[in-house]
Amino acid sequence: MITGRDEVTTMILSAKVRKGLRWADVASRIGLSKEWTTAGCLGQMTFDKAQAQLIGELFDLSDEAIAWLQIVPYKGSLPTAVPTDPLIYRWYEIVNIYGTTIKELIHEEFGDGIMSAIDFSMDIQREEDPKGDRVHVVLSGKFLPYKKY
Amino acid sequence: MITGRDEVTTMILSAKVRKGLRWADVASRIGLSKEWTTAGCLGQMTFDKAQAQLIGELFDLSDEAIAWLQIVPYKGSLPTAVPTDPLIYRWYEIVNIYGTTIKELIHEEFGDGIMSAIDFSMDIQREEDPKGDRVHVVLSGKFLPYKKY
Amino acid sequence: MITGRDEVTTMILSAKVRKGLRWADVASRIGLSKEWTTAGCLGQMTFDKAQAQLIGELFDLSDEAIAWLQIVPYKGSLPTAVPTDPLIYRWYEIVNIYGTTIKELIHEEFGDGIMSAIDFSMDIQREEDPKGDRVHVVLSGKFLPYKKY
Amino acid sequence: MITGRDEVTTMILSAKVRKGLRWADVASRIGLSKEWTTAGCLGQMTFDKAQAQLIGELFDLSDEAIAWLQIVPYKGSLPTAVPTDPLIYRWYEIVNIYGTTIKELIHEEFGDGIMSAIDFSMDIQREEDPKGDRVHVVLSGKFLPYKKY
Amino acid sequence: MITGRDEVTTMILSAKVRKGLRWADVASRIGLSKEWTTAGCLGQMTFDKAQAQLIGELFDLSDEAIAWLQIVPYKGSLPTAVPTDPLIYRWYEIVNIYGTTIKELIHEEFGDGIMSAIDFSMDIQREEDPKGDRVHVVLSGKFLPYKKY
Amino acid sequence: MITGRDEVTTMILSAKVRKGLRWADVASRIGLSKEWTTAGCLGQMTFDKAQAQLIGELFDLSDEAIAWLQIVPYKGSLPTAVPTDPLIYRWYEIVNIYGTTIKELIHEEFGDGIMSAIDFSMDIQREEDPKGDRVHVVLSGKFLPYKKY
Amino acid sequence: MITGRDEVTTMILSAKVRKGLRWADVASRIGLSKEWTTAGCLGQMTFDKAQAQLIGELFDLSDEAIAWLQIVPYKGSLPTAVPTDPLIYRWYEIVNIYGTTIKELIHEEFGDGIMSAIDFSMDIQREEDPKGDRVHVVLSGKFLPYKKY
Amino acid sequence: MITGRDEVTTMILSAKVRKGLRWADVASRIGLSKEWTTAGCLGQMTFDKAQAQLIGELFDLSDEAIAWLQIVPYKGSLPTAVPTDPLIYRWYEIVNIYGTTIKELIHEEFGDGIMSAIDFSMDIQREEDPKGDRVHVVLSGKFLPYKKY
Amino acid sequence: MITGRDEVTTMILSAKVRKGLRWADVASRIGLSKEWTTAGCLGQMTFDKAQAQLIGELFDLSDEAIAWLQIVPYKGSLPTAVPTDPLIYRWYEIVNIYGTTIKELIHEEFGDGIMSAIDFSMDIQREEDPKGDRVHVVLSGKFLPYKKY
Amino acid sequence: MITGRDEVTTMILSAKVRKGLRWADVASRIGLSKEWTTAGCLGQMTFDKAQAQLIGELFDLSDEAIAWLQIVPYKGSLPTAVPTDPLIYRWYEIVNIYGTTIKELIHEEFGDGIMSAIDFSMDIQREEDPKGDRVHVVLSGKFLPYKKY
Repeated sequence: MITGRDEVTTMILSAKVRKGLRWADVASRIGLSKEWTTAGCLGQMTFDKAQAQLIGELFDLSDEAIAWLQIVPYKGSLPTAVPTDPLIYRWYEIVNIYGTTIKELIHEEFGDGIMSAIDFSMDIQREEDPKGDRVHVVLSGKFLPYKKY
Repeated sequence: MITGRDEVTTMILSAKVRKGLRWADVASRIGLSKEWTTAGCLGQMTFDKAQAQLIGELFDLSDEAIAWLQIVPYKGSLPTAVPTDPLIYRWYEIVNIYGTTIKELIHEEFGDGIMSAIDFSMDIQREEDPKGDRVHVVLSGKFLPYKKY
Repeated sequence: MITGRDEVTTMILSAKVRKGLRWADVASRIGLSKEWTTAGCLGQMTFDKAQAQLIGELFDLSDEAIAWLQIVPYKGSLPTAVPTDPLIYRWYEIVNIYGTTIKELIHEEFGDGIMSAIDFSMDIQREEDPKGDRVHVVLSGKFLPYKKY
Repeated sequence: MITGRDEVTTMILSAKVRKGLRWADVASRIGLSKEWTTAGCLGQMTFDKAQAQLIGELFDLSDEAIAWLQIVPYKGSLPTAVPTDPLIYRWYEIVNIYGTTIKELIHEEFGDGIMSAIDFSMDIQREEDPKGDRVHVVLSGKFLPYKKY
Repeated sequence: MITGRDEVTTMILSAKVRKGLRWADVASRIGLSKEWTTAGCLGQMTFDKAQAQLIGELFDLSDEAIAWLQIVPYKGSLPTAVPTDPLIYRWYEIVNIYGTTIKELIHEEFGDGIMSAIDFSMDIQREEDPKGDRVHVVLSGKFLPYKKY
Repeated sequence: MITGRDEVTTMILSAKVRKGLRWADVASRIGLSKEWTTAGCLGQMTFDKAQAQLIGELFDLSDEAIAWLQIVPYKGSLPTAVPTDPLIYRWYEIVNIYGTTIKELIHEEFGDGIMSAIDFSMDIQREEDPKGDRVHVVLSGKFLPYKKY
Repeated sequence: MITGRDEVTTMILSAKVRKGLRWADVASRIGLSKEWTTAGCLGQMTFDKAQAQLIGELFDLSDEAIAWLQIVPYKGSLPTAVPTDPLIYRWYEIVNIYGTTIKELIHEEFGDGIMSAIDFSMDIQREEDPKGDRVHVVLSGKFLPYKKY
Repeated sequence: MITGRDEVTTMILSAKVRKGLRWADVASRIGLSKEWTTAGCLGQMTFDKAQAQLIGELFDLSDEAIAWLQIVPYKGSLPTAVPTDPLIYRWYEIVNIYGTTIKELIHEEFGDGIMSAIDFSMDIQREEDPKGDRVHVVLSGKFLPYKKY
Repeated sequence: MITGRDEVTTMILSAKVRKGLRWADVASRIGLSKEWTTAGCLGQMTFDKAQAQLIGELFDLSDEAIAWLQIVPYKGSLPTAVPTDPLIYRWYEIVNIYGTTIKELIHEEFGDGIMSAIDFSMDIQREEDPKGDRVHVVLSGKFLPYKKY
Repeated sequence: MITGRDEVTTMILSAKVRKGLRWADVASRIGLSKEWTTAGCLGQMTFDKAQAQLIGELFDLSDEAIAWLQIVPYKGSLPTAVPTDPLIYRWYEIVNIYGTTIKELIHEEFGDGIMSAIDFSMDIQREEDPKGDRVHVVLSGKFLPYKKY
């Protein structure tokens, strides 16, 4: 008996280490971006039947595990409210330092509302730079204005 | 007596409301991006003498306030570890949901290390879209590999 | 000098007590629902110029305060993450007890995504009942499916 | 030996995935709303003997598990005080942003007291809308006035 | 300008010290129990007009303060989630140690539901005892069964 | 090997469900109040040898488990500082709302000191009432004055 | 208007610095130990009329401040649950490291119960030692056995 | 495979219950105080080889467990920052109420510095008293002055 | 009336900005290291009379403020348990990532005990490096072995 | 199936106890510093293939465990935000007491920016001292200036 999606995430991570797979390759098999695919494998997104089947083959999952991949998971990938891992912390720091700046600039351009984290995509690329390569990230989220009623 | 940078930030925000200024205009006067300039005005960055003088004129600041703008501030712009404001929360949610994904993909591409939040820039633009305009954000941070010693 | 929206909220609450105003009457003057109008007066929504002018007259606000009503506020109306006030706690309790139920049922009907808290409205009414009147609340939020990319 | 209701909830969720059941169907078998029934299956409500028997058949539970369904559980369905799951967070956000508004309006209509979360019901429906379907939720709770003594 | 009920509570406590009043006497003037009256004076309950007038006279309050006494307050009388004051902590300890016991026994007697903290009264008396006097407290709360729907 | 008192509490709760026992009956077998007995079974009190033997027979415990019942446990029955279970929360709410009131009234009657939670008893009874039965609770704790030295 | 005991504590600390007083001298004037007297001056204990009068003279307090000294205060002298000050932290560390040891040894000697923090005294002395003087502290608290009922 | 010192602590506690050992007897076998010995058995101190061997015999430990007793453990014996157990809480309360008093008196006597919790000993004794026996505790810690450099 | 050391720290920081002083210069006037002197000015250390007098002249402090500098302060310089400022966070990160490593290596070399943070000094220097200058920090703390007793 | 790096860390620690290895020896086998090597063995750093192979031999690890050593781990070695272990706490205390001092001095020397915790090394040595040996630690981190853009 599989007790939840977390268990399937662990199976995937464990198989990935054993089999030496790369997320980029998994994504190209699924036909979606590496960002969405990885988030799905890490238990944050919901696969459809065909995708789940493919993931199952790549990571040697049982039918029961494949069924879990098609169920909407309880989301949230971090063990603590303030992340301890340095790479992830830097992102939290950006939100902490630039949070009010981002808020001011989006409101200045769009008025009251938010940038969606649901109708949202992310693209992470290596940007070559003679002074040291950079991580180049594009975030795109639909602006949703507050409804007045 | 001014007791700290927070007091200067409040003066700037208050003057901005009274005088109806826009961050984009402030930035073009300073000659830097609107992202960095706004973060500076909100107490997260350090201005040089000429920049501080200009900010002082735009927001009617005293000489003492202008001196504070040139002192490195204690950073952090949010009142709680998990932000309550919906716009800023969505960014925290992105870190929470995609945090492990971002980590996996940067490590897959670059190896062990982080994306700098210091040698870092951000650009926020409106992306027109017939299904509803989008917030388009580019983040660029230098990759810093962990030193082995 | 007004140092932020919180100060304006306090002015409004103080004037409301002194002048004995009712939120429902304020709302009908503004021409919007009592829910949105009250949220705005309590510092959670942004008024346009005409609305702010009207609010200013009703609560005897200065021009500077009226300017603040038109600036998008830093949102969040509660002093602690778990509210101490019994009326508000009961709502938190509903989220706590029924949270996973709400999640399961919305996903069963709509698939993966969320109910928007931005493109959202709320209507609170008295429902007469011989066994004791009831609070009848209608919440309506647009369903936003997770984007696959 | 079953060590608590949580274990039964896990059994139910696991069987639901394996057998592909729907909450709405479970509810119609029990003869109660899908909201109450789901909350019960997720460990928040107490079933009577006949209901527990039926749930047991649907989810292949042992007699011991069926006995647990008839015991009042320790309630609370979320792993953290501030939920990380985006769908559930939106509900928490509503309480956070609108909390003081809800309080003001219920007190304006009813005086001092609370809306019960016990003598309470909830109904979640799809509201079709050409601009995108909406989640339509009705909450109904008895108003309980503070006793003076 | 009075900025909230807390300010009125401070005025009452300050006047009580200056004038040497006793809660029991205040209560007998109001004609309600000393428990409810004290809770009201400490900002947790709502007075009607006549009661507020009397409180105002006893504690030398302004008309504006008397108006605030008639407004439903944001409740919660403790500065931290776990109280530091030893007397109040002992009550928290009782909830912490006996919490599951209370739950088991009320459910054994009444089934699923709660003891109301709204339709509730409390009576605190000195109980003479040769081995040392005791604090004798009676709590009485209506049992509210969970609604099935 | 039993690793601690928690494990024995789980055994007792599990056996109670399987065998359909009532706390009131267990207490009358032990010859103590149902409040103290239940607290003991839930891991908050220490049984003497004869009592532990009896509990062991009633709940089918091993000799090792019976030995654990005679060891003073690490107390505290709630999983979080602010309880999530609605029944237990209502008690926490009473402490939160009435905490300062209880403090004022006990000090007014007794001077500086506390109401003991150790030399303490509790009695929970059903109080019949035509408007709905009530939970009637008597708490009795010795008053302990602060020592001056 | 004095708004609470904290304000009186600040007055005392401020006067102590200005006048260069020593706690030991204050205590000998009051005729009680330096430990209890200091705790009282720091807002943790309640003075009687004569003591308060003396404290008032020593620290130049107003009649209103002297009245506050005779009111039981809301206790707790630390700004955070885990103290940041190194001297106080070491005491917290002793509780953290030796907490379970203290518990085991007191129970081994006395059975189930507690060491009172109310019927309690403390004595702090310098213990001369060639390897470096030591702080020698004697704590004495009445053992209170758990009541069985 | 033993995964850490916690596991050895559990083995010791479990064996202690099964075999009915007393800490005082264990200590006299080791030839050290009962306070240090108990702290060591509870995973807070490091035994040398001979001591570990003896502990191993008394509690029937494997060679691997005996090896762990000689490794410096990660210290901290409490599950939460604020302890829930009443006996241990009273000690935390002493730190909370008397913390600033202890600080003032040690600084008055010794100047700036701390009382060591490392070069530290504790002695817990029963103090007979006709009004009820007392727990008599002596703490002795070296005073360490802050270094100026 | 100065209400505490925090107020003096603010006066010093404010004067430092107004007068454009450097910590290194202040330290050389006092004749101690820049690390200890700065910590003292920021409210973490205690000055003697002559030092306080000098600090007072440099920062234009009143006699009352100079008296406060000679009183041992309540220490702790950060507003939150996990610091938000990026420079200070990196130090917290070092403790978080390397904490167990530091522990293992000091214990391997010295046995059970700690590195003192009281008999402690710190030296911060610029280390020139063609690949970018480095911050070179030397920490030196006395090793204190755990006392066995 | 190995479920994560934590499991490998436990295997290493367990083998280290069983086999009586020293970190310094492990490091010299790997050819890197004892600080980096220990951090890697404790799950904070990433080994290359040859290093992982060597570690595997020294600690008797399976091929699967050796594969995990080459995967970038989720970092953070402490169980709580404020460490409870005295040795590690002293380091946290240094950050807490000296945090603002470190910040001031690095900014005075270098301007706005941080000391890297990534391009960073640490060296821990015994410093012999007749008054008691000292722990001598050198930290070296690249200074990274904030980018203006």
